[in-house]
Amino acid sequence: MPRDRRILDAAAVAFHEKGFHGVGMDELGRRAGLSGPSLYRYFAGKDEILARLLDEAMDELLGATTPVDPDPRTDLERALRHHIEFALANRHLVTLYQREVRSLVEPWADAFTRRRRQYVRAWETLLARAFPTLEPGAVAAAAQGCLGLVFSVATWPDRALAAPGVTDLIMGLVLHGVAGVDLPA
Amino acid sequence: MPRDRRILDAAAVAFHEKGFHGVGMDELGRRAGLSGPSLYRYFAGKDEILARLLDEAMDELLGATTPVDPDPRTDLERALRHHIEFALANRHLVTLYQREVRSLVEPWADAFTRRRRQYVRAWETLLARAFPTLEPGAVAAAAQGCLGLVFSVATWPDRALAAPGVTDLIMGLVLHGVAGVDLPA
Repeated sequence: MPRDRRILDAAAVAFHEKGFHGVGMDELGRRAGLSGPSLYRYFAGKDEILARLLDEAMDELLGATTPVDPDPRTDLERALRHHIEFALANRHLVTLYQREVRSLVEPWADAFTRRRRQYVRAWETLLARAFPTLEPGAVAAAAQGCLGLVFSVATWPDRALAAPGVTDLIMGLVLHGVAGVDLPA
Repeated sequence: MPRDRRILDAAAVAFHEKGFHGVGMDELGRRAGLSGPSLYRYFAGKDEILARLLDEAMDELLGATTPVDPDPRTDLERALRHHIEFALANRHLVTLYQREVRSLVEPWADAFTRRRRQYVRAWETLLARAFPTLEPGAVAAAAQGCLGLVFSVATWPDRALAAPGVTDLIMGLVLHGVAGVDLPA
């Protein structure tokens, strides 16, 4: 595994366990099997490591929101399934985001906020195309609600995660929920 | 306003702005208009203040989950509406919980975990009574998903919070979502 990957993976675990502010570069080096100083050949510091971890997750999620199908429901369902699978497989990264996104400093914070906004707009587009009669405020709220539900898996107890067909169950909660509020008043 | 209330309210704002570990008792005193030392007449320390804030929120939410109506749908809808209104009105407290619950120390951490578990069971009971054919794993997942959706309002942008009838919209997302996954396979 490339050294920068080893550092990133070790940092994701360390930040999750002890918080971003609870871990220093020395400890990250030890956990990655490298000396503290040699880490600086790969990253300017802890801030850049956190930024890279959050950026990588954002790349993956943003990529999944690109419409490719003539049927907007197919696009929405594909993006949703991808998100649920990502969140279930990367609960520690989701928690890291929820707890530590405010620890990002410039120039990374600004860039991340811009991409995060682009990502929310992409979700609103997915929902608006699949449910064209939903009005804009409802689209914005539904997008936030869907993402809130999906990423809450980061803190679910094992009993809930072990529900049979949990991915389809979450898909169902989201899609039936949005379809339900899209009914004419 | 009683002094302990003033301290708690000032602490809720301070912890939200600077993080639990970013604020000391001196600053809490200044913000509440009291000298640092006099705070100790009301609280043993910052840990107790955080515990009291989270306990108060839990009291309020747990109280709302008690079934009182012969119709289980009525109980579920009342609890859900109460939760949504609480979350919208207390976004800083919800964020404080999400970020800082892991900062709780003993004896408060243990007691809070027990009550949190009781609270999740109460939600599962509300859902299971209202949707009696939902199997236990799905009930557990649905409870987590509903709470995840509702409490995500803490991080919604203004555009989403300003959606017309946002409380009813969230009610709809949750109730249609659960009803949808309760359909016979």
